[in-house]
Amino acid sequence: MAAFPARLAYIAKMKSRGKHRQPAVILLSGGLDSATVLAYATLQGFDCHALTFDYGQRHRVELAAAKRVCRQLGAATQRVVKLDLRAIGGSALTANIAVPKGRSAKSMHRGIPVTYVPARNTIFLSYALALAEVLKARDIFIGVNAVDFSGYPDCRSQFIKAFARVADLGTKAGATGSHFKIHTPLIKLTKAGIIRLGEALGVDFALTHSCYDPVRGRACGHCDSCLLRKRGFKEAGMVDTTRYA
Amino acid sequence: MAAFPARLAYIAKMKSRGKHRQPAVILLSGGLDSATVLAYATLQGFDCHALTFDYGQRHRVELAAAKRVCRQLGAATQRVVKLDLRAIGGSALTANIAVPKGRSAKSMHRGIPVTYVPARNTIFLSYALALAEVLKARDIFIGVNAVDFSGYPDCRSQFIKAFARVADLGTKAGATGSHFKIHTPLIKLTKAGIIRLGEALGVDFALTHSCYDPVRGRACGHCDSCLLRKRGFKEAGMVDTTRYA
Repeated sequence: MAAFPARLAYIAKMKSRGKHRQPAVILLSGGLDSATVLAYATLQGFDCHALTFDYGQRHRVELAAAKRVCRQLGAATQRVVKLDLRAIGGSALTANIAVPKGRSAKSMHRGIPVTYVPARNTIFLSYALALAEVLKARDIFIGVNAVDFSGYPDCRSQFIKAFARVADLGTKAGATGSHFKIHTPLIKLTKAGIIRLGEALGVDFALTHSCYDPVRGRACGHCDSCLLRKRGFKEAGMVDTTRYA
Repeated sequence: MAAFPARLAYIAKMKSRGKHRQPAVILLSGGLDSATVLAYATLQGFDCHALTFDYGQRHRVELAAAKRVCRQLGAATQRVVKLDLRAIGGSALTANIAVPKGRSAKSMHRGIPVTYVPARNTIFLSYALALAEVLKARDIFIGVNAVDFSGYPDCRSQFIKAFARVADLGTKAGATGSHFKIHTPLIKLTKAGIIRLGEALGVDFALTHSCYDPVRGRACGHCDSCLLRKRGFKEAGMVDTTRYA
């Protein structure tokens, strides 16, 4: 946490020099991955416009986390877009399917979990693309990473690459010669690696939320997301400040 | 209109023979293009699940048209998904930008119109993909066509092809070996061609709505969409039953 004011000071210095900062759209859930991405994009000198989705997720408490993270890291704007995914259904994160608890790392990484939301990242990136076009931004940041893509197909780099092509072909900006870049700064990192990076960039992890099935606003401590977070802090050799139920 | 009962009888016959009908997702706006697509997919033997978007469009009257079309053509289900595009803005169809009136065909086809909604078809197809995955459908139908793609980049076949790749790479179904097909039966047709096809398939065009800027529920007669529709009926040598304001 101590690290960030120095970075903020650096950004302020850049601003005062009149250096133009390019706008970028950052997909921000309120979890520790996307908080790290926001810090990363800010440090790269982008003017960060956060995009958060209220998709009827069980863990709506992450929306408040996203707001806190934007405030801490100085996002230029934050938009919360309401998505109607319940009408489509098909996931434990939105429908009436139980969130699995206490799974081993092995069973967690076998197959595609029930918490998979059909085409979620495609939908999220589509909105990010629409916003990028309106803001005349050509850069989109998303926190997909190695921990996820064993289970979620829409977290793999081939998918991201295919989406970048859609972005170039399906927009006014692309049709008139611009190229969109989908940045995935975490794609090769483990959870511990992300935590180390976030810490170095000054992210206050206590503000973030990861749990899929919170109990009175606190993390359950047993779902896949909680287990990955706990293990990540342990492997990173850092204190986990998460308040568990 | 006389044609349809015969087709319906054919479908009923197929059903009674126990022939399994594959599910398909049909993007249905309520305009004459997508109504023709729905009739086409039905005739191809698909069990059609219509997907309509309420995206804060000025011409919300098209939502009622979509419902009427589903009823006429016997869609298996219809879902109306509310989209929060106003939060993103940037188009005359959703924001406070004037819809152009009385333009010539030439000026209509110069550049990208202000009625372009940023990344709209990318967003629409993303939802269609999510629904297809939930319904175990591998076929998605969209009414993009030659009239549109001079102006809207996300109506071109290259874009559709790029999106199909995203579908295969970004879903559980695709990751486990399935392929999605994005059908574009109108892509090479002019407005007159679409009208002729729809007529042959039994679409009741009086139920459809095209106008971007309706006046008390009636078509304005002067926006690009009205002008294209009028010209299409004229070229097809058919009576335009649209009720203009």
